[in-house]
Amino acid sequence: MAAAIALSMRGRGRTAPNPNVGCVIVRDGKIVSRGWTRPGGRPHAEADALDGADAAGADVYVTLEPCAHESARGPACADLLAAARPARVIVAAPDPDPRTDGKGVARLRAAGIEVVEGVMADEARRAMAGFFTRLEKGRPHVTLKLATSLDGQVALPDGSSQWITGPEARAHGHVERALADMIVVGRATVEADHPTLDVRLSGLGNRSPVRAVLTHDWSNFSKLDLRAEQPDWRHLPSPEAIRDLEGIDYLLVEGGAGAAAAFAGADLVDRLILYRAPILIGRGLSALGDIGLGNLENAHGRWRLADSRMLGKDRFEVYERAS
Amino acid sequence: MAAAIALSMRGRGRTAPNPNVGCVIVRDGKIVSRGWTRPGGRPHAEADALDGADAAGADVYVTLEPCAHESARGPACADLLAAARPARVIVAAPDPDPRTDGKGVARLRAAGIEVVEGVMADEARRAMAGFFTRLEKGRPHVTLKLATSLDGQVALPDGSSQWITGPEARAHGHVERALADMIVVGRATVEADHPTLDVRLSGLGNRSPVRAVLTHDWSNFSKLDLRAEQPDWRHLPSPEAIRDLEGIDYLLVEGGAGAAAAFAGADLVDRLILYRAPILIGRGLSALGDIGLGNLENAHGRWRLADSRMLGKDRFEVYERAS
Ligand SMILES: NC(=O)c1ccc[n+]([C@@H]2O[C@H](COP(=O)([O-])OP(=O)(O)OC[C@H]3O[C@@H](n4cnc5c(N)ncnc54)[C@H](OP(=O)(O)O)[C@@H]3O)[C@@H](O)[C@H]2O)c1
Ligand SMILES: NC(=O)c1ccc[n+]([C@@H]2O[C@H](COP(=O)([O-])OP(=O)(O)OC[C@H]3O[C@@H](n4cnc5c(N)ncnc54)[C@H](OP(=O)(O)O)[C@@H]3O)[C@@H](O)[C@H]2O)c1
Repeated sequence: MAAAIALSMRGRGRTAPNPNVGCVIVRDGKIVSRGWTRPGGRPHAEADALDGADAAGADVYVTLEPCAHESARGPACADLLAAARPARVIVAAPDPDPRTDGKGVARLRAAGIEVVEGVMADEARRAMAGFFTRLEKGRPHVTLKLATSLDGQVALPDGSSQWITGPEARAHGHVERALADMIVVGRATVEADHPTLDVRLSGLGNRSPVRAVLTHDWSNFSKLDLRAEQPDWRHLPSPEAIRDLEGIDYLLVEGGAGAAAAFAGADLVDRLILYRAPILIGRGLSALGDIGLGNLENAHGRWRLADSRMLGKDRFEVYERAS
Repeated sequence: MAAAIALSMRGRGRTAPNPNVGCVIVRDGKIVSRGWTRPGGRPHAEADALDGADAAGADVYVTLEPCAHESARGPACADLLAAARPARVIVAAPDPDPRTDGKGVARLRAAGIEVVEGVMADEARRAMAGFFTRLEKGRPHVTLKLATSLDGQVALPDGSSQWITGPEARAHGHVERALADMIVVGRATVEADHPTLDVRLSGLGNRSPVRAVLTHDWSNFSKLDLRAEQPDWRHLPSPEAIRDLEGIDYLLVEGGAGAAAAFAGADLVDRLILYRAPILIGRGLSALGDIGLGNLENAHGRWRLADSRMLGKDRFEVYERAS
């Protein structure tokens, strides 16, 4: 299942509104086929793994309950699997989509196939967080990225921030971009830095997400230099406007302090990723603007450490929404 | 030797100008006696361990080369040890004090005792950092403490900072106080918080260090409320003035941002301890004021991560001066 979850990450940021699922077929302890949801959402992971493979009598690991609904773009995965006659299907997370919601598993069992549920369900949900956030909250999953010094600064007073973190952390930041459907920055960051926000990693250049600027003001947006060079930039008039985005399940907020605070203050951040360099800056620009915190008590209990490791000399930490 | 180093920490913050040494006597794989430099600097660790113990034929572990100089307050430890006839003396760090500087080891060898040098020397030097900093730099060893949110803030805009970190981190902060000879805070922190800076840990209450206020201005100092209640506060007119302090080998700087920046900007911080709570504050007070950083390149390469662990929900990190 861990291998299937890792495979599911290949589709992350490119399958919306479909979930980025992973699938592995195992016979006699050997992986005989692998699949993942392809860009655009089709084929589904199970169809991808079954394509050209003989699954009869095998174990099929899949990170999400197989879908029970046919569509113009393909048959239901539960039917495909039933026809392939595996011995067992091992499922990580149930699919809350009302068109499936237990029907996928039921159909497999009705076909006489053994089904095991709930294997590494938390890890699978985390890998498909965009899909679950969309279904449960009606909006994309939001990651906020902050790259700071030990004292929480993101730039010198003149705005210079090249470089705070080292090459390993910056490369990781580009992987995070590749895993997003859309990247958002504040208007002032666009004006100060003219960021391209592309994915500068070999082999992943084609994965650059949609770019958006957070600004209250359409006229501010339409005046931005960047639009002339790269007309695909989009306008986001408020953090709440992410509810109206279609085809965007994973959103990455890259700053500056105003945009970061707008998302945090609106309680729209699901995952906080921190890159911290072992340096002190002192007087500079803080990572986060006003989030409207009235007292310290309200700040507590919101974040749970989910990952922590070194990236070169920098520490990488992931915090997830605690509730 | 690890046990001897742990014992040496019992004297830390109370033995200046003597080093806080630890000593363990082992026979047949069992510890038969332990010693550490006592408050005020006497007895030395070796004398403390030898007192009432039979070391003949035993192994003696000591974190610093035994001293070779007699004083009015006691004989040289090298002579004491030679007279006790151990089989071996295992030494962590050499003593750079010109009165010893190799003579302690030479005297033991001349008495026919086997000496092993350099065992866990780095760890021992770290445990006795105040002594080494005094000898090598002519000033106390300085620890700067910062207790921040994930975004590097130490308080809300109104100055309230109760509480950012949890009880485990705060208790640890009191242990750090107990390990210091002196605690320094900036004048504005005294005026805002009226801190007592005492050690509120059961059993360690008698270890509260000398308190000092950083302020350019004697008249500002003499007007401080705190002095009326606790007349033992001292005045520190600048970070550089720590060079004139006598009997202070370990200094702890507790803030605020101005005092912290004054020490960091003067390159007088040897050890940085960070307590980071899993919260976001946004607009607030930054941990560090202006340290006079001209460009980001100059910020790099100064700090090396020496320790990192969780204290309850908070992360504790120790950085040491890299050069
Ligand atoms: N080191 C790093 O990791 C890093 C990363 C990013 C940025 N930076 C630096 O950060 C600085 C810019 O930060 P900043 O805080 O000044 O600006 P910013 O966050 O980039 O942009 C602020 C703007 O975002 C818009 N905005 C904010 N809240 C909004 C809301 N609730 N709804 C709609 N629009 C909203 C407003 O635009 P309108 O006024 O047009 O409405 C606001 O002026 C630059 O110097 C940049 O170099 C550093
Ligand atoms: N959460 C926490 O961990 C924490 C810890 C401590 C403080 N705080 C908060 O931090 C705030 C105070 O911070 P702050 O930055 O305003 O002030 P501060 O650092 O406490 O004090 C600043 C003062 O220190 C003196 N000073 C600074 N540099 C000096 C130098 N090079 N030589 C001599 N004296 C020097 C000056 O005093 P003169 O003007 O008299 O010369 C200066 O005004 C308070 O709100 C406090 O509650 C929070």
